[in-house]
Amino acid sequence: MRAEPEARIGDLEDRPVVTVLATDDREPMAEAFRKYDRIALPVVAEGGRMLGIVTIDDVLDVIQSETTEDIHRIGGLEAIDTPYDTTPFLTLLKKRGTWLSVLFLGELLTATAMGRFEHEIERAVVLAMFIPLIISSGGNSGSQAATLIIRAMALSEITLADWWRVMRREIASGLTLGAWLGTIGLARVVLWQRLGWVDYGHHAWLVAITVCLSLIGVVTFGTLAGSMLPFLLRRVGLDPATSSAPFVATLVDVTGLVIYFGIAAAVLGGTVL
Amino acid sequence: MRAEPEARIGDLEDRPVVTVLATDDREPMAEAFRKYDRIALPVVAEGGRMLGIVTIDDVLDVIQSETTEDIHRIGGLEAIDTPYDTTPFLTLLKKRGTWLSVLFLGELLTATAMGRFEHEIERAVVLAMFIPLIISSGGNSGSQAATLIIRAMALSEITLADWWRVMRREIASGLTLGAWLGTIGLARVVLWQRLGWVDYGHHAWLVAITVCLSLIGVVTFGTLAGSMLPFLLRRVGLDPATSSAPFVATLVDVTGLVIYFGIAAAVLGGTVL
Repeated sequence: MRAEPEARIGDLEDRPVVTVLATDDREPMAEAFRKYDRIALPVVAEGGRMLGIVTIDDVLDVIQSETTEDIHRIGGLEAIDTPYDTTPFLTLLKKRGTWLSVLFLGELLTATAMGRFEHEIERAVVLAMFIPLIISSGGNSGSQAATLIIRAMALSEITLADWWRVMRREIASGLTLGAWLGTIGLARVVLWQRLGWVDYGHHAWLVAITVCLSLIGVVTFGTLAGSMLPFLLRRVGLDPATSSAPFVATLVDVTGLVIYFGIAAAVLGGTVL
Repeated sequence: MRAEPEARIGDLEDRPVVTVLATDDREPMAEAFRKYDRIALPVVAEGGRMLGIVTIDDVLDVIQSETTEDIHRIGGLEAIDTPYDTTPFLTLLKKRGTWLSVLFLGELLTATAMGRFEHEIERAVVLAMFIPLIISSGGNSGSQAATLIIRAMALSEITLADWWRVMRREIASGLTLGAWLGTIGLARVVLWQRLGWVDYGHHAWLVAITVCLSLIGVVTFGTLAGSMLPFLLRRVGLDPATSSAPFVATLVDVTGLVIYFGIAAAVLGGTVL
């Protein structure tokens, strides 16, 4: 309209023609709106024939419901697409119970793992004191990493091809965060012993070193597992958000115990165990 | 346009006039678009004078960024408003490290709590075997409840006034889910003992009952804490999403240990401890 009257239509610069396919999933459609800042987009059939339009207010609802599903999965339950209030009690219970049971079966492995280390705990009960601290630190760092990657994937900020770059970055993050928590953990053990608040025995320093090294190992593993699991899930065609915070935490709990008691055996082996 | 020519303008039915205030926060603005399905809304000053319009494509971006912040908080890290790829390594590290440190300091209380139960563990090492299983079940159910409530609050499905109804519903959920996991836990202890895979001692049945009751208690507490914490945070003017999965898990870890060893003392007190 604002072009010179002599200009040919073909010469007019226009924004690219963006269309969505009638067979598209909801997510790529929402992505097209986000990317091109449009209010409405034409919907076309496979051959390119226009079928109608889809407007952004429909897309807003779609995005909201997709995001709700993602958030539910990150929180460790099956996606619920009805409001909390109007969802029947039993439906809600089933959506929560299913994943809770799966996670519980995974967590049962911690009881098996702990069984393997029964003699170590009998000989040095002090080792049991730091089990919740160590496995939860791994779970928390894993939950952070998984959340970051799942959201970045949902917003198309990173794709499958980025896995190697993400992996290197997350290993560096894990080592740094682990060293930081490990230092606090070491200080805690040494300080409490010095202040006489607790008695970790003659080998308090070795206990402190075991706790510190375990934290570095577990936090690094947690960060790595949390960041790579979404890639793995997407690679095999599943929703990356399935690698929920509780799922990663469960994975890291079992591995964390093995890391902790492995390091304990190496550090304390000659003395206490 | 399609009305009878004789009709007066004042008689024409129209959709209600929805406006947003120039001083509104981003969230109520987004909410207005969601609720009234509009493409654009007039922006008015306090007195009602129109200042301009805001279009839905801007709102789409706002909603996306608000949701990303919520998701990050639920995952247990400070909200990051730049893409994963372009956020400098140190910024990312700081946003994760801050919350990770806070959670770690909270988790240090588990080491203190465990110290109180050292004698119980010395006398019945078998109690240590189920610590990760029990505290993580509480964390998982708490994470589910917190996620459900945070999202329902963000979508205005529930408000502060609903806390009592939500509480009753969540206690019922917690008891049911706890009883379910408790039954699996009980079966696991008894079955493994019967099959001769492990030896939980002469008091295997008491151990099984301790595990079962603890799971009921911890899952109920986790569900209750996870669902009420978002209300509490909103009540004191904080973002409900701060009650992240890791935050709830940390809270439940410490309480879970107390519940577990309390029940163990009651059930096993006369025999093993």
